[in-house]
Amino acid sequence: RTLPSSQPRLRLPPGLSESGFEVAVKDLQQSIGSGNVVINDQPLQDGWYLEHPNTHDAFHVVEQEELVCSAVVYPGSTEEVQTVVRWANEHLVPIYPISVGRNVGYGGAAPRVPGGVVLDLGKRMHSILNIDGENASCMVEPGVTYFALYEEILRRNLPLWIDCPDLGGGSVLGNAIDRGVGYTPAGDHFANHCGMEIVLPSGELLRTGMGALPGKDGADNPTWQSFQNNFGPKIDGIFSQSNFGIVTKMGFWLLHDMPHQSYCFTFAKDEDFPHIVDAIRPLAQKGVLGNIPQLRYIVQELNVTGRRKSTFHSGNGPMTREEIRNAAKELPLGDCSWIFYGTQYGDEAAIERQLDTIKKAFSSIPGTKFWLPQDVPEDHYLHSRVQLCSGVPILRELDWLNWLPNAAHLFFSPITPTRGKDAQKIHDIIVAGHKKYGFDIFPTLCIAGREMHYIANKRRAVALLRELDQVARTYSWNDQALLKFNETMKDALDPNRILAPGRCGIWPKRFRDRGWEL
Amino acid sequence: RTLPSSQPRLRLPPGLSESGFEVAVKDLQQSIGSGNVVINDQPLQDGWYLEHPNTHDAFHVVEQEELVCSAVVYPGSTEEVQTVVRWANEHLVPIYPISVGRNVGYGGAAPRVPGGVVLDLGKRMHSILNIDGENASCMVEPGVTYFALYEEILRRNLPLWIDCPDLGGGSVLGNAIDRGVGYTPAGDHFANHCGMEIVLPSGELLRTGMGALPGKDGADNPTWQSFQNNFGPKIDGIFSQSNFGIVTKMGFWLLHDMPHQSYCFTFAKDEDFPHIVDAIRPLAQKGVLGNIPQLRYIVQELNVTGRRKSTFHSGNGPMTREEIRNAAKELPLGDCSWIFYGTQYGDEAAIERQLDTIKKAFSSIPGTKFWLPQDVPEDHYLHSRVQLCSGVPILRELDWLNWLPNAAHLFFSPITPTRGKDAQKIHDIIVAGHKKYGFDIFPTLCIAGREMHYIANKRRAVALLRELDQVARTYSWNDQALLKFNETMKDALDPNRILAPGRCGIWPKRFRDRGWEL
Ligand SMILES: Cc1cc2nc3c(=O)[nH]c(=O)nc-3n(C[C@H](O)[C@H](O)[C@H](O)COP(=O)(O)OP(=O)(O)OC[C@H]3O[C@@H](n4cnc5c(N)ncnc54)[C@H](O)[C@@H]3O)c2cc1C
Ligand SMILES: Cc1cc2nc3c(=O)[nH]c(=O)nc-3n(C[C@H](O)[C@H](O)[C@H](O)COP(=O)(O)OP(=O)(O)OC[C@H]3O[C@@H](n4cnc5c(N)ncnc54)[C@H](O)[C@@H]3O)c2cc1C
Repeated sequence: RTLPSSQPRLRLPPGLSESGFEVAVKDLQQSIGSGNVVINDQPLQDGWYLEHPNTHDAFHVVEQEELVCSAVVYPGSTEEVQTVVRWANEHLVPIYPISVGRNVGYGGAAPRVPGGVVLDLGKRMHSILNIDGENASCMVEPGVTYFALYEEILRRNLPLWIDCPDLGGGSVLGNAIDRGVGYTPAGDHFANHCGMEIVLPSGELLRTGMGALPGKDGADNPTWQSFQNNFGPKIDGIFSQSNFGIVTKMGFWLLHDMPHQSYCFTFAKDEDFPHIVDAIRPLAQKGVLGNIPQLRYIVQELNVTGRRKSTFHSGNGPMTREEIRNAAKELPLGDCSWIFYGTQYGDEAAIERQLDTIKKAFSSIPGTKFWLPQDVPEDHYLHSRVQLCSGVPILRELDWLNWLPNAAHLFFSPITPTRGKDAQKIHDIIVAGHKKYGFDIFPTLCIAGREMHYIANKRRAVALLRELDQVARTYSWNDQALLKFNETMKDALDPNRILAPGRCGIWPKRFRDRGWEL
Repeated sequence: RTLPSSQPRLRLPPGLSESGFEVAVKDLQQSIGSGNVVINDQPLQDGWYLEHPNTHDAFHVVEQEELVCSAVVYPGSTEEVQTVVRWANEHLVPIYPISVGRNVGYGGAAPRVPGGVVLDLGKRMHSILNIDGENASCMVEPGVTYFALYEEILRRNLPLWIDCPDLGGGSVLGNAIDRGVGYTPAGDHFANHCGMEIVLPSGELLRTGMGALPGKDGADNPTWQSFQNNFGPKIDGIFSQSNFGIVTKMGFWLLHDMPHQSYCFTFAKDEDFPHIVDAIRPLAQKGVLGNIPQLRYIVQELNVTGRRKSTFHSGNGPMTREEIRNAAKELPLGDCSWIFYGTQYGDEAAIERQLDTIKKAFSSIPGTKFWLPQDVPEDHYLHSRVQLCSGVPILRELDWLNWLPNAAHLFFSPITPTRGKDAQKIHDIIVAGHKKYGFDIFPTLCIAGREMHYIANKRRAVALLRELDQVARTYSWNDQALLKFNETMKDALDPNRILAPGRCGIWPKRFRDRGWEL
């Protein structure tokens, strides 16, 4: 059924009528300024997708386009975030905080409940509150991107690094709160945060760590970015990957810059897989590897060049093994099956010794070759690793059309012990899974000392969302004890359920079974 | 007015009558066996202190002895812990979980509410559930002490270390749940745990991390000790230093054994202090130091010998600076003011280079000397460091009379940034403070890259308890926001307030203002 093109239309939050919504919006516009609350009610021409990401995305889940927000709010300070949260409680409006989201997967974050209100913290709260050279730390607001932080450190020419994910346009805070990871020794972003300021769903303001200790004359506590723990329970963790609070400030430890060397190994046969894994484990456990390495399958080399798939393959089924081999020959690394990317840190002598240990470990697998950056052309992926692994944010042209939050990685990453035979089992399942769905498979593995993330991402993740909700249910030991525990806490902290209901599968009662769970 | 000696007497939990208590106890004895519920009702002869630590301690805080428990319960399994918790909810009896407590301050933990019931998990739940060599991890029950774990690893001669505190008789789980620290690179015990099983105050059973993911056919998830995070909020932290749950199982990562070298530096003058601190900071931040080092004042050298103070000093005021200097001359390290204890790890060449860097850093302070273990006699403290810092638990005979949880350090340890002049200021205040109380001062400093713990402990901690409650209040930024947040969670998780009320200053409503806050 078609709509003539000039109808103005608006997607209301659940349980609010048009007029109730208008009153609520006017109420908020009065508090924080009308320019900072934008109702999303333009008639929908198809052609204006270009420069505004966070109201609607390209997937048709059910018929009409449902997952659109009703308004976007731009708070300018912590106080205004509190105003918005109290407002949300007053009008029972679900709000979805994001920090940047601008070029995140060209998709940006749509709310999990139709008509939810997106709370875009990054637009007006984007200042680096401080960088402390002596303490090697910084404190940022949600809108600070890796680029902004990187430039500011440059500008003050401090000898410090940041750790960033593949996408440098993300938010330092957003990524960490999502437990994102990067590629320097300080790869675990959340573990390297030090102190947070959080607006609770009730609108109360909380500081964690030493920030909970008042400084002299109301100033911040001087050790806020120096020591992570306050006395008593360690509560920071529950605000990560959750909807228990909105983080408005976050402190981070920064690495001191140091000499570093990135490299990669290529392995010739598919069956080498379990042996590679068994060789890596001890290296990781003993801390020989400088950071968390990546093991990629050759297919991924093809698409990282950015050329269209059609140049290598006609039709839309998966590429055959053969076509893959042929295409690989023209690439700089030549024909191989797996590529191992790693980086070492420390003074030159230390790096050299570690490389020897690593070469020795891999030497037991025939047909293995070792590459340094100067062995491949300027535009090869290894060169972006050099930057990534030394704290320089990069911005690749990526062309696939997709929509994923950080969990995209975790989704297809059942985590397995770092053991050969376990890894093999998983591999076969994945291969079978992809055939069933008739997709090319290009796995990326992040291998730590004791576990490995088996990562894949693919074109349409229709089933994805449904299963994201399931992911939370899969942690169902003892009849959903974990999920219930989270809901008990959610109900205690957010009785009106206005903060990002559904985030990470935590659906409060009010929204359960309403058909928005997929 | 004197009590004749044969009176039977019993300290009842609040709000329970003698008979109500009996019924409650009988009820529990039927469930878990009468031998495992011991009522504490013997008439009090002075002489029976020797072999049972956890009912009563030797201090008279107010007149009659109040802080005594009414019974001790020994659960034998997780199910029994759940039974006890449901029992406590049914009869509104506050319970205090401990894991070992045997030689902690020779006192063990008295309950914070008179007549509370001590839940001694360590007595019957003391098995090492597994040690996984390949994964370099283990899982233990509360009763496993550092000794037990150490011997088991030896018995299986696995090339693995544990990390232990000064006292090796403590519980691996108890110490970690208290956020204890040790002296190897894996010094932060809690940060190196991986997966917990927790009985919630409601009696529900919960597993964190990958344990929340059911394994095949009901087995534990194989990656329970391999990856720390479950999907969604990271909740482990809130069970540390808190009364939100009883931990019945806890997984730990273990270090691989590696070459190591312990050493110490001595500094000549009191005024060197701020310069030492400024020299250490960059070393710590750049990860040159292998573990968290200790900086001690010379007085402590005197008492660590275990000799009575009176041999150095007559009368009971503080020792003068002069007497300290004289007494120091006869000691192995000779006359100095500060001693720095450190350890380096890694292969020999790496260790050597690090030591050079460290010597260079300290060379800017005149009168500094460098010592290796072989430079001092066998019974010097440096030799116990060698063991401590390579995962060998030790057991010093210490002669002062005390009762403290881990916070003893934190109490006198305002955490300050690792900066010379900040350190200096703190030092002066402490010195003045000690003069006011007319005590000798022997500080120990644990210095990290960005902060330092200034640790002192002294004889009678009368003021201590009072201030432990205050410590929680000192984290009072934004009008007690943190404390309120904890109480909200406490009320949601433990509506009947039976789990360790008062622990870490979290007093639930039912017990507030009843005169038990000191
Ligand atoms: C090709 C590709 C590669 C990628 N590689 C990596 C990688 O290597 N490592 C990695 O970590 N990620 C990776 N990502 C995902 C990456 O996390 C995100 O793209 C980006 O960092 C997150 O977006 P953002 O920083 O703008 O945060 P946002 O979109 O602002 O936030 C993410 C989520 O966190 C919550 N949130 C944000 N701000 C707040 C707040 N202030 N308070 C409470 N909750 C908040 C919201 O629920 C939001 O949905 C990759 C993604 C793609 C597409
Ligand atoms: C001279 C001296 C030096 C010391 N040096 C150090 C040091 O270097 N590093 C350090 O960390 N500590 C140090 N300590 C303190 C040390 O923490 C304790 O002595 C000991 O480790 C704790 O006792 P425990 O392990 O038996 O735990 P417990 O006494 O069993 O537990 C401690 C507390 O944790 C809680 N708890 C215990 N088990 C559970 C459970 N299963 N579930 C829920 N809550 C539970 C209880 O509230 C209990 O009060 C030192 C103490 C002294 C006196």
